[in-house]
Amino acid sequence: MKKLIDGLQQFQTGYFSSHRQLFEELSHGQHPRILFITCSDSRVDPNLITQAEVGELFVIRNAGNIIPPFGAANGGEGAAIEYAIAALDIKQVIVCGHSHCGAMKGLLNLSSLEDTMPLVSNWLKHAEATRQVMRDNYGNLEGEELLEVTVAENVLTQLENLQTYPIIRSRLHQRNLTLHGWVYHIESGEVLEYDAVSHDFIALQSEIRTPEPEYNFHPTCPVSSSKSFPVPPASQSKGNHRQSVPIQTPLKNGGLASRN
Amino acid sequence: MKKLIDGLQQFQTGYFSSHRQLFEELSHGQHPRILFITCSDSRVDPNLITQAEVGELFVIRNAGNIIPPFGAANGGEGAAIEYAIAALDIKQVIVCGHSHCGAMKGLLNLSSLEDTMPLVSNWLKHAEATRQVMRDNYGNLEGEELLEVTVAENVLTQLENLQTYPIIRSRLHQRNLTLHGWVYHIESGEVLEYDAVSHDFIALQSEIRTPEPEYNFHPTCPVSSSKSFPVPPASQSKGNHRQSVPIQTPLKNGGLASRN
Amino acid sequence: MKKLIDGLQQFQTGYFSSHRQLFEELSHGQHPRILFITCSDSRVDPNLITQAEVGELFVIRNAGNIIPPFGAANGGEGAAIEYAIAALDIKQVIVCGHSHCGAMKGLLNLSSLEDTMPLVSNWLKHAEATRQVMRDNYGNLEGEELLEVTVAENVLTQLENLQTYPIIRSRLHQRNLTLHGWVYHIESGEVLEYDAVSHDFIALQSEIRTPEPEYNFHPTCPVSSSKSFPVPPASQSKGNHRQSVPIQTPLKNGGLASRN
Amino acid sequence: MKKLIDGLQQFQTGYFSSHRQLFEELSHGQHPRILFITCSDSRVDPNLITQAEVGELFVIRNAGNIIPPFGAANGGEGAAIEYAIAALDIKQVIVCGHSHCGAMKGLLNLSSLEDTMPLVSNWLKHAEATRQVMRDNYGNLEGEELLEVTVAENVLTQLENLQTYPIIRSRLHQRNLTLHGWVYHIESGEVLEYDAVSHDFIALQSEIRTPEPEYNFHPTCPVSSSKSFPVPPASQSKGNHRQSVPIQTPLKNGGLASRN
Repeated sequence: MKKLIDGLQQFQTGYFSSHRQLFEELSHGQHPRILFITCSDSRVDPNLITQAEVGELFVIRNAGNIIPPFGAANGGEGAAIEYAIAALDIKQVIVCGHSHCGAMKGLLNLSSLEDTMPLVSNWLKHAEATRQVMRDNYGNLEGEELLEVTVAENVLTQLENLQTYPIIRSRLHQRNLTLHGWVYHIESGEVLEYDAVSHDFIALQSEIRTPEPEYNFHPTCPVSSSKSFPVPPASQSKGNHRQSVPIQTPLKNGGLASRN
Repeated sequence: MKKLIDGLQQFQTGYFSSHRQLFEELSHGQHPRILFITCSDSRVDPNLITQAEVGELFVIRNAGNIIPPFGAANGGEGAAIEYAIAALDIKQVIVCGHSHCGAMKGLLNLSSLEDTMPLVSNWLKHAEATRQVMRDNYGNLEGEELLEVTVAENVLTQLENLQTYPIIRSRLHQRNLTLHGWVYHIESGEVLEYDAVSHDFIALQSEIRTPEPEYNFHPTCPVSSSKSFPVPPASQSKGNHRQSVPIQTPLKNGGLASRN
Repeated sequence: MKKLIDGLQQFQTGYFSSHRQLFEELSHGQHPRILFITCSDSRVDPNLITQAEVGELFVIRNAGNIIPPFGAANGGEGAAIEYAIAALDIKQVIVCGHSHCGAMKGLLNLSSLEDTMPLVSNWLKHAEATRQVMRDNYGNLEGEELLEVTVAENVLTQLENLQTYPIIRSRLHQRNLTLHGWVYHIESGEVLEYDAVSHDFIALQSEIRTPEPEYNFHPTCPVSSSKSFPVPPASQSKGNHRQSVPIQTPLKNGGLASRN
Repeated sequence: MKKLIDGLQQFQTGYFSSHRQLFEELSHGQHPRILFITCSDSRVDPNLITQAEVGELFVIRNAGNIIPPFGAANGGEGAAIEYAIAALDIKQVIVCGHSHCGAMKGLLNLSSLEDTMPLVSNWLKHAEATRQVMRDNYGNLEGEELLEVTVAENVLTQLENLQTYPIIRSRLHQRNLTLHGWVYHIESGEVLEYDAVSHDFIALQSEIRTPEPEYNFHPTCPVSSSKSFPVPPASQSKGNHRQSVPIQTPLKNGGLASRN
């Protein structure tokens, strides 16, 4: 505790003093641009990894960056989503998973949690779709590799779940909201973003491939800018499904293989 | 009741007698190809409108063809979905709304139901996303027109909800399942299907625009065959959102305007 | 899908064209006389087996034609029941089970479903009373015979469950509603109806034995006022029905005694 | 989005590069010392205000830093608490409210939220105890002052709620866990901590008054063993703190009496 208290004093004499005006302005209201949903894990610091300033990220954190489908839970997730979008008018949502996620490890060993951590076990049912995708489709994976892909697939599951919320449905309908799936790698400091065009997680670059607000996960909105990219022809994709589901490949190689 | 009993006898001496072998075969097992989710409404008869034979459609019917998001309800919907896909290996799901839907009328007058029909009122919360889309985006609509668009938007909401089910997520991941949104018009006998490319409901024709199994609502799977169609360029779509959100337009005109 | 689309066109040019006026009338409102609750099974087509016209049957379909007791679930069943009776003023409810029911097979092997189909397993808990009746009273049955009786007993369980709904209770109290238990046999095309007087399932005939509106349909309590009606003696009734009734649930006689 | 992506790159070339070894170590496991529960508000950055390093704080964030009582919700809060304490063996929990909290503003105008933000409205029921404390005891407060005290009282409510969790109860019983209530002031950068001895929020100082592990943190019950410690007399303590403590919740004195 002493260390924390020293830290508080250091914050006051350091960062706070040099940003006094910012904090003064913020005391009159917040205007964050992004709803950042990530894990409670101590190794993930949203403001640090994005270098976002105080006031920029509205943050939801729980074990496993999980968003229960609308109506499936009455915890804080739905309320924070609603507040972020309806009250704060946020237009970008990021679901950020991370490597070595303990919640995802738990998901892969769910039965062992029932007795020892019943609340965690129950909570992870909102990631059951992730578990089934893994069980049905990635039976050959093990260890670190299995965990990495689970983390990535879970981000996609939670993006699906997000889209059942009324306020999300409505804003996506208006093309007034974009959803983003991220995976942060603790050991490399890198962030990969889900790319709907290639159906893969790719390195986040300044030059993003789908201009906003066209970049839209909403299943009813086809990615209209697809022609800018070399998409494999449908016939080829039909003939060889392995190529058209690239998420299996790059993540197998450690998730980073496709970085430049 | 007498009429029903006469009907049963008529069925036995008529249809059953002439299809005895079919029923004998079916008694050994069902192999339906389609999971058909529609409203309890007496005016909707799935086998009649599709002219499907006995044994072809596995059917879920409730008020409003609603599928609560995974975990949000413990009624029969989830179980029937799971059974249809996991046990019967069905590869096509159709959510079929219909014109003049009483459940959707109820949704547009939700407050009036709380006292008189509490179970209906509670059930319609699983269509809350539909209600919000309508409230936020179609404020100018009234009467029949409002109801028609509500029916269509609700089909899309339920397609979103469907995608939170583990077995659905997994089969979509494998590209081994397709989801379809239909609206049946009682007065014309027509069926419109949601078309992800144009983001509109269009007349169902033999010549469908997106070949299966490429036709896939899964938001993480871009419609790969999009180049076969004249998709408006991204810039134009950006500049004029009205053109790129055609669902607002054709349904305004009665839902059938775009038929050939 | 092509077959379905052809069917839709065939429906339009055929049945719809020749019944245009009926559909036009129906577009102004539905007035079904019967709430028909049956299984999602593709081999059961309510309108076909009853030869009911479009507009006559308000239909609930789920796996196992199960109606959870009031308050036990928040799925679509309660809402559809409420809507059927409170809004549409329907006065007859039919719960229709069927031979070779996969859900009932599942009920007889519940433990095997927990892992593979958790939603089905959970759903079947609303038929737990059926399971216990079978376990406690029909220990000597096996195979097809066991399944047949389970199907019939489950119809009775669901009739009990139905009677826990406020609107059902109230309308029964007013003698303004009748409940019927049916079993449809796929291989013979026959329908048996539960008969409260003999406490047995008997062939449905025009000459029904209990004049409507019968009150107190309570399936496990033989109608106490049976004296008031010219009811044939039990033995005679048994003798009459045995030939035309392939399955019975001869509960009065303690199980199978009366089976031929 | 561009700004965020620039931030990610800046993080990699800057902080990450200079702390590469720390991140490498963290990739093998997290060992945070503190469970930090705070609001989603973009103006609150836990690592910044405590100057804690990556890996030190396990963080739960939702609207209003609310922890529903055990069993009252099935959201992510309980699971994250359980994981933090049972799996990570964390021994200190901080609930940190903050000035100008939008969720607390909402709590003070709850009725206005029912229609516009139903999920927020529902979520705030877990802070109903805060609302009642305010209504019953602080009727004379208004505006900013009312909001400030609400924020502080809500921290105490949530500390109560925390203590309903089995794992929390058990660890407190073992004197193996301490709970702390904080209020962070955006405009001054200061943090006040709830002090059980004076039943007041006081400036956090290196010289803390109750040696850890203090048992019985029960916020509404002044520590009865206070005699054992050299506690300065209440009046003196008040005098000391008044200058450095812009907000107080001088509950002992019945509300506002001691405010200057």
